[in-house]
Amino acid sequence: MSKIMSHADDTLATLAEAPTSRRTFLRTASLSAVGGALVACGKDGGQSGAQAQKPAAAVPVRPESGQTGGTMGAHDTVKPAPGALSAADAMDAMHEKGIKAFPAKTAVYGNQPFEPKIVNGVKVFEITASEMQWETAPGQMVKAMAYNGQVPGPQIRVREGDRVRVVLKNQLTQSTAIHFHGCELQNDMDGVPFITQPPVKPGQSFTYEFTVPNAGSHMYHSHHNAATQVGLGLLGAFIVEPRNKAQEPKVDQDVVFILNDGAHGYTFNGKSFPATLPIVAKLGQKVRIRYMNEGMMIHPMHLHGMHQTVIAKDGWPVPAPWKCDTLNIAPGERWDVIVNCTNPGTWAFHCHILPHAESEHGMFGMVTALVVQK
Amino acid sequence: MSKIMSHADDTLATLAEAPTSRRTFLRTASLSAVGGALVACGKDGGQSGAQAQKPAAAVPVRPESGQTGGTMGAHDTVKPAPGALSAADAMDAMHEKGIKAFPAKTAVYGNQPFEPKIVNGVKVFEITASEMQWETAPGQMVKAMAYNGQVPGPQIRVREGDRVRVVLKNQLTQSTAIHFHGCELQNDMDGVPFITQPPVKPGQSFTYEFTVPNAGSHMYHSHHNAATQVGLGLLGAFIVEPRNKAQEPKVDQDVVFILNDGAHGYTFNGKSFPATLPIVAKLGQKVRIRYMNEGMMIHPMHLHGMHQTVIAKDGWPVPAPWKCDTLNIAPGERWDVIVNCTNPGTWAFHCHILPHAESEHGMFGMVTALVVQK
Amino acid sequence: MSKIMSHADDTLATLAEAPTSRRTFLRTASLSAVGGALVACGKDGGQSGAQAQKPAAAVPVRPESGQTGGTMGAHDTVKPAPGALSAADAMDAMHEKGIKAFPAKTAVYGNQPFEPKIVNGVKVFEITASEMQWETAPGQMVKAMAYNGQVPGPQIRVREGDRVRVVLKNQLTQSTAIHFHGCELQNDMDGVPFITQPPVKPGQSFTYEFTVPNAGSHMYHSHHNAATQVGLGLLGAFIVEPRNKAQEPKVDQDVVFILNDGAHGYTFNGKSFPATLPIVAKLGQKVRIRYMNEGMMIHPMHLHGMHQTVIAKDGWPVPAPWKCDTLNIAPGERWDVIVNCTNPGTWAFHCHILPHAESEHGMFGMVTALVVQK
Repeated sequence: MSKIMSHADDTLATLAEAPTSRRTFLRTASLSAVGGALVACGKDGGQSGAQAQKPAAAVPVRPESGQTGGTMGAHDTVKPAPGALSAADAMDAMHEKGIKAFPAKTAVYGNQPFEPKIVNGVKVFEITASEMQWETAPGQMVKAMAYNGQVPGPQIRVREGDRVRVVLKNQLTQSTAIHFHGCELQNDMDGVPFITQPPVKPGQSFTYEFTVPNAGSHMYHSHHNAATQVGLGLLGAFIVEPRNKAQEPKVDQDVVFILNDGAHGYTFNGKSFPATLPIVAKLGQKVRIRYMNEGMMIHPMHLHGMHQTVIAKDGWPVPAPWKCDTLNIAPGERWDVIVNCTNPGTWAFHCHILPHAESEHGMFGMVTALVVQK
Repeated sequence: MSKIMSHADDTLATLAEAPTSRRTFLRTASLSAVGGALVACGKDGGQSGAQAQKPAAAVPVRPESGQTGGTMGAHDTVKPAPGALSAADAMDAMHEKGIKAFPAKTAVYGNQPFEPKIVNGVKVFEITASEMQWETAPGQMVKAMAYNGQVPGPQIRVREGDRVRVVLKNQLTQSTAIHFHGCELQNDMDGVPFITQPPVKPGQSFTYEFTVPNAGSHMYHSHHNAATQVGLGLLGAFIVEPRNKAQEPKVDQDVVFILNDGAHGYTFNGKSFPATLPIVAKLGQKVRIRYMNEGMMIHPMHLHGMHQTVIAKDGWPVPAPWKCDTLNIAPGERWDVIVNCTNPGTWAFHCHILPHAESEHGMFGMVTALVVQK
Repeated sequence: MSKIMSHADDTLATLAEAPTSRRTFLRTASLSAVGGALVACGKDGGQSGAQAQKPAAAVPVRPESGQTGGTMGAHDTVKPAPGALSAADAMDAMHEKGIKAFPAKTAVYGNQPFEPKIVNGVKVFEITASEMQWETAPGQMVKAMAYNGQVPGPQIRVREGDRVRVVLKNQLTQSTAIHFHGCELQNDMDGVPFITQPPVKPGQSFTYEFTVPNAGSHMYHSHHNAATQVGLGLLGAFIVEPRNKAQEPKVDQDVVFILNDGAHGYTFNGKSFPATLPIVAKLGQKVRIRYMNEGMMIHPMHLHGMHQTVIAKDGWPVPAPWKCDTLNIAPGERWDVIVNCTNPGTWAFHCHILPHAESEHGMFGMVTALVVQK
């Protein structure tokens, strides 16, 4: 059975279930390589790494093999430039600090499961758009526009054929409207001011109601002054499960992964590294990831250690699934992939436009991890 | 039978055939949502929208159902900040003005059908490159380089196996040459100065002649100082229909959709919103769209209300058609899609890099509409 | 049998085998269009082009046919603006100079075949990271970080199931580490400082050892301060041939094509046009190209004259090969294509983001050629 919950909940639940505190998680999962002993724990890689901590002496790489080719003697011949080591240490310390902080706690998470009210069989979602301060990383406060106080807005999950009502209340100081991106709705529910409806002015409400059409990983977001409003956070996932569940791949986790790159910086689900949430899975689990790009730039998402199998584009199953490790997501696109968690460890997972993920001060922005627990 | 004509002609013909003036078209199609009554006309969506025009009172959303969950009471509890409404009104007025102007008339349209002279069985196209002023939107004049006074240049349509002669006359103040992008020509017809031919200097002519090879949605454009010349307009569609028409999907309209993002701003077929031309189709029609990116940036093209089925890449049929609503088009690429016009209404159709499509002043640039008429 | 060697070697070997000097190659292949006579040598295109050199008189395009439609009379009616021709000539001279210089010789080439030491059945690759000056084009020296003095680093080719040891020596003034991008290694060999290993500090070494997993076109590069280090050159190809060679397409050449766009400008395998190396093939040969994007931007790679058949994404065979002439490569992606060299001549081959390939001063950056020799 698929566990369907928000990414934040997945992570917190996993950590709560496990006989470990969050602090322990960090130590065992994310920071498993920090400290001299930790890198020596691989199955057959014990010959490596720890020695890098001991630059003062040549250390045989595989003492048991006695091969001269395996001797690390670089430090015998290489003399770092004066000051190089301390400058390198200073840079490394910044990098280490960021990774040690991961996953850094922030006050509020977006993309929370949205439980509708059921009114005469209609699933009713009440959404209020308002301005607020949003914390993208610890202490990093940005101006936001948010649905129900979350960036991304709460995650809507409905089923093909459901009757759905979305009541939008506008508490912003500018007009707005909601477009259900990817849903093939009747025209007057399409959410484009002056084309399909009037703008929803400050203080006003607007009700969208429809029978849910095509299944898939869709989005809801502002379609008014949208370069600004979506950039500031008026966006969320609108997942439509197919009427026939047998069509769906069986997965253990179903994760929504919204990319953005506007005024809030480079974010995954509204957070920047180290405040991004890792995906935590057990060895052997299947994870479905639903990428959604709400930004202005492409983001080629690179997963370490395991490949991604692409199963759907914009909610439509692809004719034949295909594999990759780096999936390019363009603005407005959604791509669904399956990751078979066959490789234990903490795996970097990031946008491969490197300036979106790392600077001289360490990792930031579009970085998270897939943690595969044995 | 496929109606093969330019996009501008399609639109104008449709408007001419219909018992409506252009002004009426605007009112009924593009602006159907403007005014209090218009958004209440959906089949089963009549409960929504109109109320947004009446912020002073709580209005039951579905009077006939009497559900309290359906009551819009936001304006009872929300108090806009002082001045917010007027600022919002001012912004909305700019947005409305742009949409009301669509499709705004400009003096000259590019991508017009190009009738060859037939000389002893050879299809002869005479193309003059010259500098001119080009109107991208009403009153928005830009410096252009154009083929036969059009941006994009006139649309060439030939058939596999045709003998074609293209006579280029250079009336520019710099040299130029034509590359038939995507056509697998013999080397000396490839149009790259100093590699396959000399540059065609100001005042000179050059004649390309070849038997048309591979079918598909190709392009012709300058390959000399091309970052400048293509950016300024020396580009056009070069469509090659297959020898065996049975290979082609049967469609009612065949629309060329050229994207550009250079010195002329963000344009579709040389025009910026609101001067872009809508695609106007009848309910049930099939429209083939041939996207061609002549710019420097990706443009993920998002169609509202209906999906796009991808049938060809760079003129080559894809092994298995696949569906999407947002198709990422990179520079130099061509993608052919089919849209089944099953959903009536006026549908926004735009690049989903939002700053290419909307600002605080309203929609601009890479925005048009697909109008599906009942 | 596939000839597996570096691109530089391919080219040099081809030129060495052929009874021509490098100078002759330039004249016959790359510059075959320079000079009035050269463009008149096509099989059935002899009617064109040469006349463009003679603006003073109307010249029948096809004297043998006597068609008036074939008469070039542009120069009778067109009068260039005063000074236009000389300005155009000056621009053309810059363009010609660049193309005449191609392929311009530079001191050192990257991506050279990397012969491992075999130690007790283990393939051992010793890699030293150091700072150096790198020549991207004749006289164009840039600061680089390089593996074994090459940008890209030496090309590693191993086979699925091989036991491989990579000994990294850090002679930089900052820490580093190697990530084997695309290889599904055990976690402690993944090369991400503070997540899977400590940083390798200046003067230190680190040994990676593993049994080679999934086949495909992979990369090795720094994963520490990587936006800087990869931008400066710490990257290379890591090709894994499948255990079962029968799975591989039979090709005559196997070319690695690494794209970068950082501090070194727009480069193919570390070089900018005119210092990029052409691919030189014989008519009828099949060439496999392994594109790898190590930059920050997309690069849609456009080949003139022939199409590309896509066979793999990130090392994974695609479910059904598909054809294109312009293939969009995003950062971190690898795409494998086959080109059937069926069309003789020198063909431009470039990124189709035109400002990455050409300026008013001529071609530069991401331009090379595929030369198909009869």
